[in-house]
Amino acid sequence: MNNLSNIPYLKKAGQATFNDRHVKKFGELIHDWCCQKEKGFVIIGAPLSKSSISHSGATFAPGVIRQQLQAYSTYAIEEERDVDAYIYDAGDIEMHVTNILESQTRIANVLEEVTKKHPNCIPIVLGGDHSISYPSITGFAKTKKTVGAIQFDAHHDLRNLEDGGPSNGTPFRSLLESGVIKGEHLVQIGLRNFSNSKAYHDYAKEHGVTVYTMKDVRERKIDNIIEESIAYLKEKVDTVYISVDMDVLDQAFAPGCPAIGPGGMTSDDLLQAIRLLASEQMVGGMDIVEIDPTLDFRNMTSRLAAHIIMEFVLHKKG
Amino acid sequence: MNNLSNIPYLKKAGQATFNDRHVKKFGELIHDWCCQKEKGFVIIGAPLSKSSISHSGATFAPGVIRQQLQAYSTYAIEEERDVDAYIYDAGDIEMHVTNILESQTRIANVLEEVTKKHPNCIPIVLGGDHSISYPSITGFAKTKKTVGAIQFDAHHDLRNLEDGGPSNGTPFRSLLESGVIKGEHLVQIGLRNFSNSKAYHDYAKEHGVTVYTMKDVRERKIDNIIEESIAYLKEKVDTVYISVDMDVLDQAFAPGCPAIGPGGMTSDDLLQAIRLLASEQMVGGMDIVEIDPTLDFRNMTSRLAAHIIMEFVLHKKG
Amino acid sequence: MNNLSNIPYLKKAGQATFNDRHVKKFGELIHDWCCQKEKGFVIIGAPLSKSSISHSGATFAPGVIRQQLQAYSTYAIEEERDVDAYIYDAGDIEMHVTNILESQTRIANVLEEVTKKHPNCIPIVLGGDHSISYPSITGFAKTKKTVGAIQFDAHHDLRNLEDGGPSNGTPFRSLLESGVIKGEHLVQIGLRNFSNSKAYHDYAKEHGVTVYTMKDVRERKIDNIIEESIAYLKEKVDTVYISVDMDVLDQAFAPGCPAIGPGGMTSDDLLQAIRLLASEQMVGGMDIVEIDPTLDFRNMTSRLAAHIIMEFVLHKKG
Amino acid sequence: MNNLSNIPYLKKAGQATFNDRHVKKFGELIHDWCCQKEKGFVIIGAPLSKSSISHSGATFAPGVIRQQLQAYSTYAIEEERDVDAYIYDAGDIEMHVTNILESQTRIANVLEEVTKKHPNCIPIVLGGDHSISYPSITGFAKTKKTVGAIQFDAHHDLRNLEDGGPSNGTPFRSLLESGVIKGEHLVQIGLRNFSNSKAYHDYAKEHGVTVYTMKDVRERKIDNIIEESIAYLKEKVDTVYISVDMDVLDQAFAPGCPAIGPGGMTSDDLLQAIRLLASEQMVGGMDIVEIDPTLDFRNMTSRLAAHIIMEFVLHKKG
Amino acid sequence: MNNLSNIPYLKKAGQATFNDRHVKKFGELIHDWCCQKEKGFVIIGAPLSKSSISHSGATFAPGVIRQQLQAYSTYAIEEERDVDAYIYDAGDIEMHVTNILESQTRIANVLEEVTKKHPNCIPIVLGGDHSISYPSITGFAKTKKTVGAIQFDAHHDLRNLEDGGPSNGTPFRSLLESGVIKGEHLVQIGLRNFSNSKAYHDYAKEHGVTVYTMKDVRERKIDNIIEESIAYLKEKVDTVYISVDMDVLDQAFAPGCPAIGPGGMTSDDLLQAIRLLASEQMVGGMDIVEIDPTLDFRNMTSRLAAHIIMEFVLHKKG
Amino acid sequence: MNNLSNIPYLKKAGQATFNDRHVKKFGELIHDWCCQKEKGFVIIGAPLSKSSISHSGATFAPGVIRQQLQAYSTYAIEEERDVDAYIYDAGDIEMHVTNILESQTRIANVLEEVTKKHPNCIPIVLGGDHSISYPSITGFAKTKKTVGAIQFDAHHDLRNLEDGGPSNGTPFRSLLESGVIKGEHLVQIGLRNFSNSKAYHDYAKEHGVTVYTMKDVRERKIDNIIEESIAYLKEKVDTVYISVDMDVLDQAFAPGCPAIGPGGMTSDDLLQAIRLLASEQMVGGMDIVEIDPTLDFRNMTSRLAAHIIMEFVLHKKG
Ligand SMILES: [Ca+2]
Ligand SMILES: [Ca+2]
Ligand SMILES: [Ca+2]
Ligand SMILES: [Ca+2]
Ligand SMILES: [Ca+2]
Ligand SMILES: [Ca+2]
Ligand SMILES: [Ca+2]
Ligand SMILES: [Ca+2]
Ligand SMILES: [Ca+2]
Ligand SMILES: [Ca+2]
Ligand SMILES: [Ca+2]
Ligand SMILES: [Ca+2]
Repeated sequence: MNNLSNIPYLKKAGQATFNDRHVKKFGELIHDWCCQKEKGFVIIGAPLSKSSISHSGATFAPGVIRQQLQAYSTYAIEEERDVDAYIYDAGDIEMHVTNILESQTRIANVLEEVTKKHPNCIPIVLGGDHSISYPSITGFAKTKKTVGAIQFDAHHDLRNLEDGGPSNGTPFRSLLESGVIKGEHLVQIGLRNFSNSKAYHDYAKEHGVTVYTMKDVRERKIDNIIEESIAYLKEKVDTVYISVDMDVLDQAFAPGCPAIGPGGMTSDDLLQAIRLLASEQMVGGMDIVEIDPTLDFRNMTSRLAAHIIMEFVLHKKG
Repeated sequence: MNNLSNIPYLKKAGQATFNDRHVKKFGELIHDWCCQKEKGFVIIGAPLSKSSISHSGATFAPGVIRQQLQAYSTYAIEEERDVDAYIYDAGDIEMHVTNILESQTRIANVLEEVTKKHPNCIPIVLGGDHSISYPSITGFAKTKKTVGAIQFDAHHDLRNLEDGGPSNGTPFRSLLESGVIKGEHLVQIGLRNFSNSKAYHDYAKEHGVTVYTMKDVRERKIDNIIEESIAYLKEKVDTVYISVDMDVLDQAFAPGCPAIGPGGMTSDDLLQAIRLLASEQMVGGMDIVEIDPTLDFRNMTSRLAAHIIMEFVLHKKG
Repeated sequence: MNNLSNIPYLKKAGQATFNDRHVKKFGELIHDWCCQKEKGFVIIGAPLSKSSISHSGATFAPGVIRQQLQAYSTYAIEEERDVDAYIYDAGDIEMHVTNILESQTRIANVLEEVTKKHPNCIPIVLGGDHSISYPSITGFAKTKKTVGAIQFDAHHDLRNLEDGGPSNGTPFRSLLESGVIKGEHLVQIGLRNFSNSKAYHDYAKEHGVTVYTMKDVRERKIDNIIEESIAYLKEKVDTVYISVDMDVLDQAFAPGCPAIGPGGMTSDDLLQAIRLLASEQMVGGMDIVEIDPTLDFRNMTSRLAAHIIMEFVLHKKG
Repeated sequence: MNNLSNIPYLKKAGQATFNDRHVKKFGELIHDWCCQKEKGFVIIGAPLSKSSISHSGATFAPGVIRQQLQAYSTYAIEEERDVDAYIYDAGDIEMHVTNILESQTRIANVLEEVTKKHPNCIPIVLGGDHSISYPSITGFAKTKKTVGAIQFDAHHDLRNLEDGGPSNGTPFRSLLESGVIKGEHLVQIGLRNFSNSKAYHDYAKEHGVTVYTMKDVRERKIDNIIEESIAYLKEKVDTVYISVDMDVLDQAFAPGCPAIGPGGMTSDDLLQAIRLLASEQMVGGMDIVEIDPTLDFRNMTSRLAAHIIMEFVLHKKG
Repeated sequence: MNNLSNIPYLKKAGQATFNDRHVKKFGELIHDWCCQKEKGFVIIGAPLSKSSISHSGATFAPGVIRQQLQAYSTYAIEEERDVDAYIYDAGDIEMHVTNILESQTRIANVLEEVTKKHPNCIPIVLGGDHSISYPSITGFAKTKKTVGAIQFDAHHDLRNLEDGGPSNGTPFRSLLESGVIKGEHLVQIGLRNFSNSKAYHDYAKEHGVTVYTMKDVRERKIDNIIEESIAYLKEKVDTVYISVDMDVLDQAFAPGCPAIGPGGMTSDDLLQAIRLLASEQMVGGMDIVEIDPTLDFRNMTSRLAAHIIMEFVLHKKG
Repeated sequence: MNNLSNIPYLKKAGQATFNDRHVKKFGELIHDWCCQKEKGFVIIGAPLSKSSISHSGATFAPGVIRQQLQAYSTYAIEEERDVDAYIYDAGDIEMHVTNILESQTRIANVLEEVTKKHPNCIPIVLGGDHSISYPSITGFAKTKKTVGAIQFDAHHDLRNLEDGGPSNGTPFRSLLESGVIKGEHLVQIGLRNFSNSKAYHDYAKEHGVTVYTMKDVRERKIDNIIEESIAYLKEKVDTVYISVDMDVLDQAFAPGCPAIGPGGMTSDDLLQAIRLLASEQMVGGMDIVEIDPTLDFRNMTSRLAAHIIMEFVLHKKG
């Protein structure tokens, strides 16, 4: 087709980059078509951030996280093992320009369709702001039995829906109110002082939500919190969905979230949590949200998101 | 007055922002008038940075820290408690355009007046550069008996006054030489290699200043250092003033100080120190200095300053 | 109320700035209450940018433009005249977090109410993106007879409404289709190559819209274009509303618009156009849109917007 | 292949963007395969900037210019005409990591091959730094008879080759010394004070190079200079290659060149020159060089490069 | 001394840069020692900006302008002439850390000493903010007969001294009040709307100051204004000092001034004015002020300052 | 020479900065001439970064690191000791503009010459990218017996040389293949997941390279790793060269490396490693590489490099 393709050193635009014949790029694991029979992962971009309470450019995160994934290699030197998973990049969900609820409906529908068609593929949803977790988990849950969630977040995200509609402050409220997830099937980790209100903490307690604050994270090893959470959920649910709001991290480690602040988790703690969770068979889905590449420094936060995905894929059992 | 105020959704300029009816903003605790009888806190802006040895935009810090305070909520989820303190924002001290000594005199006078009129209000002074601590503590001390100070800083700030006058390198020299604070009533925490000189360390020793270097902070828990400092000062002084030079922090955690560098404290350590100090009744004043918002990344350093204030208010006893 | 107000040099937060007793700031002309009887201007913030096709932070523009207005003085040295107009800042319209159409309805309602209550005040609406001009002009037109518009823009803004709803690409389409403005009452100035499509240019022609491209601006003096436009509209309408999309300017002069590009107007040309238009009695409203302060360099584009407002107020007749 | 392609709103990664059915994007004219028979244009990326005397990120320019081209539309409202040219994007030439001369040889070879295989396609080469013009024109000239060049540049680019090899300071020296272009077939436009040396101006004169300084540009209309240049070259050469060093522009209009400075051309002048040149049948090739996207502001300089290409394609005759 | 100096390719730190044997750098004209007998120029850095009403980093400008001067060459291609002037860099005046008046006194003393010792050297003073022009001209005038000044500025700089002391708003007030310069010997060019007050324009008129506003600059050629100014001053004074406040330029051309705004002069106009002034024998001194490199984009404003100096030196007669 | 040197407060350009008579700057220990007899250190700049696989501005690092060194003081408060070492700054090696291999040869030659002439001086080489370690260690090893290396790095740097020549991905491959260092004499610390390939890890193992991954660093104290490494090398080699690729650090602590990422070492760990290594007599050379000041935030990474050098000098024994 490209009738110049036999001219030496002339490559398709953007592909004339250096390749080392002995390095397998992580990007080579990612395909834009799905091989039905295989077990694997499916990446879905949900570039919605008009739903944010404050101005957010999280719409750009799926693209930037994908770029980061391309740049890394498949080899985990800590485990002396090459990742050889099958990752299907299903693409991005087209958002409506002016109708935010329509955009959220599309997310729910796509998640339902994808998980139906690819029951053996674990969805990794790239936000977007945290509002996407409500439709994402709703769509995801359609084909599952009882679904629980572990949410890493500085915030409850249990705001009322009257004041602003389904925003990035409300996804878990919506999930609880719609019955997609029960309060006692929700574990929130990393909540921070002065970033929540008494009313919503009370709401969380009334609905049986399990809450680990940053004080818990500081004073107990993250390993203990994760093990405790898993042990607790194992009794109650069939499938666990992990929702990673990157603002759970300290601003030094995730400078690109809209709601940055001091006193959060370290990268090491979060990556360790992901490793432990990935090794649990019941963990069946994940989203990563609240990265605004227009605010980030050198895509640090998206780089960390890529590592979360890679460690998740590396350690995934199930 | 505003005769359009009955038009739906039309709000005063800058106030048409989203409000969640169930969230109490920290800003709601802050008033620009003082209710005399109450115990509380008084915020005073001292936007002086022309006194800095190197170029500094710390003059902008009081405004930026206030913005950050407005954005947070009152609820401390770690303690499951709503802060309900009374915080009086007394405003900013007007600085002279070209007469730096006059500006410093105004700071001393305002601190004296404010502490006289509001003996039950704990002053929280927002610099500005560190030069403001000399007039601030001088004014503060007028109505107190013996005053001691705990200074978080990478530097002694004990420079001679001949070479450049009362700058951000000299406040504690001035305090010692004027007798406002005695050397043995001064505790310095966080001093760093290659950021001080032998002459001034010698001066500190000769005057009985207590010095904890970063090696001490690295090797001992910050809790021990604070407890030891408090125990020591309790024997000697009536009131302790905390002076927080944000450059005591590692550059990764406080990127917005003029004199950033590696090897400093973490946010967690400093916040923990503040919590412990706040719970001491004898702690009666605080300043936060050396934040230059023009150099910061996404106001990270001012966000941390806001957390220092909020944790201080939350844990304050006395 | 502020019981420290008698302490020398202590000013309300943010107000301890330098004042020269012989300089009257433009901000002093701006009041947050309206004196009904007077003729004057009314500023209304319409901080909507979720309606943009591409990501936009134009929601921050009203606040930044207001800051710029505060900084300038009232004195027009070119005319040797102090502006002494009465400018009422009616505030900002609160936008809904997730319902963009609701936000647009609020804009229309507020404009209608304000122009009803203050028929002698010329509204100056600060966007936001260009989508606000549809509700703004719709509300404005309620109390007027025939309304025409002069639109400065690199783009037609006549896109179809099916593909994305009422966005910043559609305001003049909506105005024409709703009949608020007739095609022959619309003059578009500054349209640029490769920034429009044949279909919409054809639509413009079919509806009798008058179009001046950048070639016209380059080859004819702007004075001629404005005079011709005014002469044309005088025959047809009672009131003219000016809609200034700042991307009509060359990127060197307005670096803060989402859709910057080369080959646009100079600041001098646009300011001259505004001076000429202001002096026409029939010009009765204005909006300034498409400034994204998060993309700008040192608020250059908002500074220019402030000059547009000030020259408009200075030269306004009628 | 993509077995999710029938899920509504799910698009390939990066393609879930807004499309207006009535807008034809300029990117639609650009194909990554060539239809042999057609007349047209061929874009070739030459991402070499290690050859620069000063540090340069011009290696990123081909990618960024292509992005800009995608964003614009095909419609030239000034001419009321849709561009319908065939543009073949041949891709990028892979550069060697550590052997700069090898990289330059590859450029010459690719240009020779492309122009041989596609004699009816006008090459548009995207640098990279200006060093690429030596191999580019050398390869281009292989299949042409006498080739002349019009170089827009603040600098002669006639440096000696002993001091640093074939850098971005030497391309026209190499072309003259190798005999690919004769001095009397070279026209340089836009040379600037304090940006050249007497020795190289003398060299230019000795070799019969035609030089128009910025004083010429300021004092004569650019139209006259271009017409004079074309008239002059028509007598002497068969084919003219245009080499556009973007630093010919004033820094206000092209902030992203390594060697920016005041006193250069305006965007309008350069675009007008391109329009006039494009309409000359003998103009048969072009390169655009010296854009460093890592230094630019909002890709202004690449946006201007895209406009140069689009105006060139729009007006091309021959 | 440097006993490695005979190791090939090892150069003193910072000097291992590329040198083209045929290019003479402008920096080679600049010496840090003075050859008494020669006619020439003397550069003096006055890095004072603590005197600014608003925050300013103009203290860094002398260093940055010098860097720019080093980078250019000596050859003026427009005139086909190599500059061969003798330029003595006398260095920087050390500023006091906390005593601004002392700093200003030092400037006056140094200017007096330098002009006494080097009566044949034309001083080029690099600010700092505009406050330095009062001491600079005062020192300069000591050895001259009647001194006049041509001030390029958006502002009068005639503020009262009571409100803030001798700041960057007052230098020409101080010069008039001290009698160093008479009002009728002062020409101000480029004053802008909304950037001055009626009171100070009245003061200017009362004192016989000649004022050309931007309207004058727009409507008359700058050549005419300069010729008229020179003709006027020739009747009245012996020596003219040029004071260039870079904020006289439009923000697009000088983005690095503290007080940027639209509607100012172009680079071309200012450079042309400098060329014309330099050719007047009576012009005997110059300062360039109000560049804040911390706010600039890629040192554009300092680059322009360097061009002003180079064109001044190139065209200087006398 | 400078005949104005007796004018008060007039200092050479750039030297009119504040000096505190009681502070000795670290810069005072650094001389640009060498006193042969003394033991000491020699700084050599190797500003090569055209050899990088990805775009790199590491060429600017030597200059920026030197600036940082100037700014600190000599006093180590943790040890209560003034550094009094003799540090000779031999300058920078001039790089060829277009011949990268020639540049690398120059580095090898200079290192050989310097270490021959100054056998008692420990070289501290400032990169540049990591490609400089091959010629640097090759030159260094000429006068030593058996040389081993401890490499801090996220990456092996053992790539094949066929695909891109001697780049920043290959230095230790070249050293092993040329026999300058044996595999069993190389210790690599800090290698990270997804940043290496299986093929090169296999190569490392086959050649007996000792590898500590980040998992080792996380799970064991850095002190243990360093002690184990030293104990191991003491058995095998005479001299150890430390190669510090700053990307071994977590991106939060070294934001200015081209290949930043999460999950790396902390500043404290690296500084502690340096202290321990410095105290070993057999450590005889060091380089610091892969800092790109054009990407850094406030030169944080260069500041850390300066601390590495200062701690190294402070603790050096031997
Ligand atoms: Ca959340
Ligand atoms: Ca959150
Ligand atoms: Ca301090
Ligand atoms: Ca300090
Ligand atoms: Ca528009
Ligand atoms: Ca537009
Ligand atoms: Ca060139
Ligand atoms: Ca050039
Ligand atoms: Ca001025
Ligand atoms: Ca001015
Ligand atoms: Ca390396
Ligand atoms: Ca590395």
